[in-house]
Amino acid sequence: MDKPYLRQMPGPELKNPIFVQGLPGFGNVGKIAAYLLMKFSGAKPLAELYSPSFPDYVSVSSKGICHLPRYEFYSAPTEKNDFVIMTGDTQPSFDDVVAHYALCSETLDFIQKKGCNFLVTLGGAPVKEEKAQVYVAATSARLALDFMEKGAVIYSKGRVVGATGLLLGLAKERGLDGICLLGATTGFKADRGAGFAVFKFLMKALGNEIKEGL
Amino acid sequence: MDKPYLRQMPGPELKNPIFVQGLPGFGNVGKIAAYLLMKFSGAKPLAELYSPSFPDYVSVSSKGICHLPRYEFYSAPTEKNDFVIMTGDTQPSFDDVVAHYALCSETLDFIQKKGCNFLVTLGGAPVKEEKAQVYVAATSARLALDFMEKGAVIYSKGRVVGATGLLLGLAKERGLDGICLLGATTGFKADRGAGFAVFKFLMKALGNEIKEGL
Amino acid sequence: MDKPYLRQMPGPELKNPIFVQGLPGFGNVGKIAAYLLMKFSGAKPLAELYSPSFPDYVSVSSKGICHLPRYEFYSAPTEKNDFVIMTGDTQPSFDDVVAHYALCSETLDFIQKKGCNFLVTLGGAPVKEEKAQVYVAATSARLALDFMEKGAVIYSKGRVVGATGLLLGLAKERGLDGICLLGATTGFKADRGAGFAVFKFLMKALGNEIKEGL
Amino acid sequence: MDKPYLRQMPGPELKNPIFVQGLPGFGNVGKIAAYLLMKFSGAKPLAELYSPSFPDYVSVSSKGICHLPRYEFYSAPTEKNDFVIMTGDTQPSFDDVVAHYALCSETLDFIQKKGCNFLVTLGGAPVKEEKAQVYVAATSARLALDFMEKGAVIYSKGRVVGATGLLLGLAKERGLDGICLLGATTGFKADRGAGFAVFKFLMKALGNEIKEGL
Repeated sequence: MDKPYLRQMPGPELKNPIFVQGLPGFGNVGKIAAYLLMKFSGAKPLAELYSPSFPDYVSVSSKGICHLPRYEFYSAPTEKNDFVIMTGDTQPSFDDVVAHYALCSETLDFIQKKGCNFLVTLGGAPVKEEKAQVYVAATSARLALDFMEKGAVIYSKGRVVGATGLLLGLAKERGLDGICLLGATTGFKADRGAGFAVFKFLMKALGNEIKEGL
Repeated sequence: MDKPYLRQMPGPELKNPIFVQGLPGFGNVGKIAAYLLMKFSGAKPLAELYSPSFPDYVSVSSKGICHLPRYEFYSAPTEKNDFVIMTGDTQPSFDDVVAHYALCSETLDFIQKKGCNFLVTLGGAPVKEEKAQVYVAATSARLALDFMEKGAVIYSKGRVVGATGLLLGLAKERGLDGICLLGATTGFKADRGAGFAVFKFLMKALGNEIKEGL
Repeated sequence: MDKPYLRQMPGPELKNPIFVQGLPGFGNVGKIAAYLLMKFSGAKPLAELYSPSFPDYVSVSSKGICHLPRYEFYSAPTEKNDFVIMTGDTQPSFDDVVAHYALCSETLDFIQKKGCNFLVTLGGAPVKEEKAQVYVAATSARLALDFMEKGAVIYSKGRVVGATGLLLGLAKERGLDGICLLGATTGFKADRGAGFAVFKFLMKALGNEIKEGL
Repeated sequence: MDKPYLRQMPGPELKNPIFVQGLPGFGNVGKIAAYLLMKFSGAKPLAELYSPSFPDYVSVSSKGICHLPRYEFYSAPTEKNDFVIMTGDTQPSFDDVVAHYALCSETLDFIQKKGCNFLVTLGGAPVKEEKAQVYVAATSARLALDFMEKGAVIYSKGRVVGATGLLLGLAKERGLDGICLLGATTGFKADRGAGFAVFKFLMKALGNEIKEGL
């Protein structure tokens, strides 16, 4: 393997799906929120993205089965919206920014083919003391305002690091719209509370009722 | 030299050889086990793999002869099984995961050409206190169970790092079968005991009697 | 995105513009001096240079709008000279020198197309105690002497690190002329004084009167 | 600049020149020995090799003139032997081994074109206490023995790191002959004594009388 490759599974047709990404990161907020959305929407495997820029190990399951590090894509048609959800158990090495740009571009190619025109990246925002807050940054001032009116706080004059920020920045360069939702977290441990807050905010903002016990 | 290259030596025809890899790593278990198998089976040089991703030094022998870092392949026909054995005195830099993926792919290309359909990678598993244990991870649940029945413990919910894990993960992506055997080791020094345990388990599992004094 | 790309804005025709670069670095002297020149000359956006070698984050503005890290070019016709000014909020990773060479080459391609034949790079020179001094290094002994006569001290037997030095070295290889002006700074904090000294020296050396309150 | 490039100067025809390399390194022994050979033989500039893998700074001379990091080649016809001598003020980054392999290959391409069939790389060998000793490693046992008979000690079971070792290892892969001479040094400071010992040994071994005061 000398470049990223994508393995697709057969799946349902999606109508203008919203793309939602949640990867491991600060307080693991993004990954937890994406996991909750997958449970909520009954998401099904859609594709796997492998890359020689991921770490050189294999993960071993409880049954002793190994698999390479990868990004995982799921499709989830719901009543209100169709989703393409992306998660994974790793990001490219901190040092290899070129690889990170390439993988995000690969991701955008794929989700554009799937018809996604709107992106939501999920992550954690470091705060000193615990509080229930969701921050938003966006590809345009109008979008940031929209989500502020729905209850998020503008994440101003900061940086959004890793795939959470980069994917959005690259999407903007392609003329796509999107937002980044960051759950306030002290980041000391995997922060289920912040993950849930981000998930709940997203659902509410998109007009979904959360009925199922999660 | 700007990419890996392989130098082959003439050697015997091999029948469905089993591929066994043991490189330097945790407690040096893998390399020691591979060395014991080479001694046991009277292995002969088969090929050398050079790469610009290996460290920039030369090793000097006792006679003052220098050679570049490399992976070494040996062929070993035995009564029960034919083997292709791989060892070496280095791995690519920890930082250069892309190179590591490329070298493992190069290795798989070569051993597939040699007819290997089954892989065994050997390494060490970190434990806090010394114990005689061999762990197994595999490309399928069935294989993991097979070797569990032969006395290994399933290596569950863990990671297998470096070439020991990566080669197996990449082999699985090609549809090849294989296992990884990890000898329990505290890793404080080169662990001959763990290396011998791994070697002995492998031989027994493959139906070989260990007759020679090793 | 797998290589640098440049987005140009429409702008005025420039006559033999002088290229001035000031990036973040030691004491932030270069960036501060470039900022002062931009204010002084009423510079307008000319181009943006993006690259997969820049860090993997997005910067978020006070309005919540995100953008990728980038080099920014501005054009500034003044009475005496036309300028192309380059600044940014980052440099490629310290480790990735190949990327740094590539981005400087990209920059030189662009400014040569814009008609720049003379380069001025701005930065900070580490000194132990605060003093008001501007140092000069150049692509030729004659140029170094010219600016010494205008009040700078030859920066002899040293190294100029990062884009401040590299861009000049690469420009020299292309047969372009240029100088590097370094403001003495202890570097403990963003050094506005050193930045102003460098800006003032440059303006005086080029025959500009500084009238505006800066 | 996105790959190494070589700038050649006109120079004399050389007859089967011996290639001698001395770069900065342990105790700076190699560079000092190469410098002494250049003085001894009245060497003239032959070529300069630039590379985007060299560090991203410029060196500034005492006159304030900057130049990029580079390898420098000199030609030196002497009564007994013709030499191509290589030195420089840097090596590629420790991390970028691929670049190091590429630059050594570039170097070998060039010196083979110049007719060099025999290589001598010069460096320092770390010892705990000062002693006057020159060690040798070679591309063959015969060569190692030859130079042992001339007074060097076989450098057995060790590693020769950096360009000193790598160039020899890569030369061997091309079927070229060569040796590496290492001057014993504690490495605490630039070791002129060890550099002189290596230079003197090389001259004697090649049958040169050292007449000039050095």
